[in-house]
Amino acid sequence: MTGRNVADGRGVFIGPVAVGDDVETIMMDTAAPANGTTSALVLIEYQNDFTAPGGVQHDAVRAVMAHTDMMRHSRVLLDGARARGMTVLHAPITFAAGYPELPSEPYGILAGVVQSKAFRKNSWGAEIDATMAPTAGEIVIEGKRGLDCFATTNLGFILRQRGITRVALAGFLTNCCVGSTMRSAYERGYDVVTLTDCTATLSIEAQEAAVNGTFPMFSRPMTASAFLAEHDEGATA
Amino acid sequence: MTGRNVADGRGVFIGPVAVGDDVETIMMDTAAPANGTTSALVLIEYQNDFTAPGGVQHDAVRAVMAHTDMMRHSRVLLDGARARGMTVLHAPITFAAGYPELPSEPYGILAGVVQSKAFRKNSWGAEIDATMAPTAGEIVIEGKRGLDCFATTNLGFILRQRGITRVALAGFLTNCCVGSTMRSAYERGYDVVTLTDCTATLSIEAQEAAVNGTFPMFSRPMTASAFLAEHDEGATA
Amino acid sequence: MTGRNVADGRGVFIGPVAVGDDVETIMMDTAAPANGTTSALVLIEYQNDFTAPGGVQHDAVRAVMAHTDMMRHSRVLLDGARARGMTVLHAPITFAAGYPELPSEPYGILAGVVQSKAFRKNSWGAEIDATMAPTAGEIVIEGKRGLDCFATTNLGFILRQRGITRVALAGFLTNCCVGSTMRSAYERGYDVVTLTDCTATLSIEAQEAAVNGTFPMFSRPMTASAFLAEHDEGATA
Amino acid sequence: MTGRNVADGRGVFIGPVAVGDDVETIMMDTAAPANGTTSALVLIEYQNDFTAPGGVQHDAVRAVMAHTDMMRHSRVLLDGARARGMTVLHAPITFAAGYPELPSEPYGILAGVVQSKAFRKNSWGAEIDATMAPTAGEIVIEGKRGLDCFATTNLGFILRQRGITRVALAGFLTNCCVGSTMRSAYERGYDVVTLTDCTATLSIEAQEAAVNGTFPMFSRPMTASAFLAEHDEGATA
Repeated sequence: MTGRNVADGRGVFIGPVAVGDDVETIMMDTAAPANGTTSALVLIEYQNDFTAPGGVQHDAVRAVMAHTDMMRHSRVLLDGARARGMTVLHAPITFAAGYPELPSEPYGILAGVVQSKAFRKNSWGAEIDATMAPTAGEIVIEGKRGLDCFATTNLGFILRQRGITRVALAGFLTNCCVGSTMRSAYERGYDVVTLTDCTATLSIEAQEAAVNGTFPMFSRPMTASAFLAEHDEGATA
Repeated sequence: MTGRNVADGRGVFIGPVAVGDDVETIMMDTAAPANGTTSALVLIEYQNDFTAPGGVQHDAVRAVMAHTDMMRHSRVLLDGARARGMTVLHAPITFAAGYPELPSEPYGILAGVVQSKAFRKNSWGAEIDATMAPTAGEIVIEGKRGLDCFATTNLGFILRQRGITRVALAGFLTNCCVGSTMRSAYERGYDVVTLTDCTATLSIEAQEAAVNGTFPMFSRPMTASAFLAEHDEGATA
Repeated sequence: MTGRNVADGRGVFIGPVAVGDDVETIMMDTAAPANGTTSALVLIEYQNDFTAPGGVQHDAVRAVMAHTDMMRHSRVLLDGARARGMTVLHAPITFAAGYPELPSEPYGILAGVVQSKAFRKNSWGAEIDATMAPTAGEIVIEGKRGLDCFATTNLGFILRQRGITRVALAGFLTNCCVGSTMRSAYERGYDVVTLTDCTATLSIEAQEAAVNGTFPMFSRPMTASAFLAEHDEGATA
Repeated sequence: MTGRNVADGRGVFIGPVAVGDDVETIMMDTAAPANGTTSALVLIEYQNDFTAPGGVQHDAVRAVMAHTDMMRHSRVLLDGARARGMTVLHAPITFAAGYPELPSEPYGILAGVVQSKAFRKNSWGAEIDATMAPTAGEIVIEGKRGLDCFATTNLGFILRQRGITRVALAGFLTNCCVGSTMRSAYERGYDVVTLTDCTATLSIEAQEAAVNGTFPMFSRPMTASAFLAEHDEGATA
């Protein structure tokens, strides 16, 4: 785990919590394994329209998905997060029939959503991929309509109410929803991890630009296996 | 760039928009009285747990519901809003089994929700009252877990995307969710209307304190019929 | 109330949350004194326009200020918070000349601000009362223009970055800015304390309605001395 | 100014308020092309620490500033925005002595701010560049401490209260604060313009990745001169 006294300036990542009145204890703490119970894994838009052949956005992301071997790494990630007691949060995007939540002529990335008729509520394409689906007790974040997972949902509410301090991000698109959520989580003071081999976007060039360019500015980018290892016995984060 | 009425495509300004070639139409529209298409009615927690005998919170609000004749006025309100082309938004509160979105020992008003086992997703109590239920095309706001309808949902996103400038509030509780949403809408710069005879809370004393005390500070309080009249031909608000 | 130290499980409150099967540990934790370093005192609008004879809003709040003996209690509160190592945050409201941040014809409570020409930047009335003024190292929250101290400022950013989990509120007006900030802090998952003898508003009736009516729904209301005592050796919060 | 009261049903409504003392002018405005009065120019961190030789971050951005001829274009932009009656907003970033608003060991981009001792309140480096400085009546946005200009300030409050629907962004860094603000403005439903020749960042590669990669997803990227031309007589946007 993480957490440092703002005052003393020693130790590891300090995130949103100054802890305790005893620096020695804190130093010991930082040698302890990263605690799964204060980490959350946010799975962004693992929905058939992205993940599955036949999904209306699948062809657009297929090349990068293969490049990062995204789905295989994501399944290992999800199993490992569950085994370590992390909070697992699913963040799909959906729209009602006719996209009444959007203007009739949106521009930018949302225009593509409307034009392709993606993510329609109750459609097969909007369903979470069966291999990444929530189990009983896992929370599905409601309300996502735009890019940033925090902006229109109860994600922030749930993280705060549950005392989460580390947020790991995986899913689609690397430089769109993952990037916006990373920026917002960083600004909110979380210890943000971006899972580089569990993301995909529209081109390998754009993937590399995000992973090498902006990810290090607002997060600690790493692979799924490195992230899981941070939470293992003896690990220091 | 552009901007159009989602509903009919005929030129009422609705969002991030320059007005371009729709200027003629817009001028006609804006010459009309207080326009239903830029008004939204937000119906807060008209759910069986509040509205119906047998609902776990019903007894707590029954006296004030009778005092304001809330449900009768609310049905007139809903019919009238639909007839005038307003955006109708339904804002229920729900929680997953076991209330994982909340701490295990909440305090304040949310403690009462957990203790009474209210608003459990997929329960009869969480369902919207049949007489106030959404019709096809009406948006159900997702994500409400706390008090302020804006705080954990896509309400703000939808209002902005649809170009709504006036927000009218009805539902439960007068001094809790209605009051928090009123304050937040006022702060966001909306023309906020609180519908005094379409709200209820735990005591007549608390109802009066809210309606006479804080409502005028952050809204224009009025009855449902006065609100509907503001949108009628020749009306000025 | 309950909560856990993110880092080591030993007793710093971190939100209104107990975590499942860790209850035993939590109970031990909560026997420790409430730690000043994770508490923040937010002083709302202790500005001459409210506090001092000659301030343009002073006459409106004078009766309740006398009723609660607000300034005397507030000075004890501020001294005590500093002595206990709390983060002290000052949250004044100010407007540029001509109130360009507001519409030319605001309604509700902000209309009164404009009409009375209150809180003009660089005016004597906008200055923080000399007896409550920040010392070196105390942060003055910037940007407050509306009611909720979180809505238009960096308050949330600073609380998160510093690891604050308990927020105590004092100042003006009990049922306006204090009330809006209380609701927002509660919704954000903080342990919210409202300091009943360090607040004032426009009438004793409105003061009582807030303190007895809405404060207990969204906070733990108490006197300044009770709040300070919570942070003393051996105290349990 | 701009905007009309919903109330009277004439003109184009733009907020909860009638603004300005001359309805006739407003009516003419709404017939005019892309209206300066509903456009805002947000100038991000034009501070000596970035813009001037000797500024602690200047060397890091100098190459891209020269590449885009940023300062010359920015001055044309600012003059043109003023001449067209746009709302001009200045958004500097500042920190109190010792950076108490940040953790003692920040990571990511904010770590660089602390290490370089940039943007210290009341220092020369934090001052807005003399050639881009606010004139009387222009609003300086307060509270910016992180990346997104909306996140910790009253920017959103002011835009809403003034009825702004189009937001144009210029300044530093292209892929950091400009990018975060662009994403947030897009999500909030604004017509977002990014001014490609009035931005700079740490490398030409990163500049190109932002301008060509993410800008078109969340904005309408264009040069300063194209943006100004959109607001000229006869233009349609």
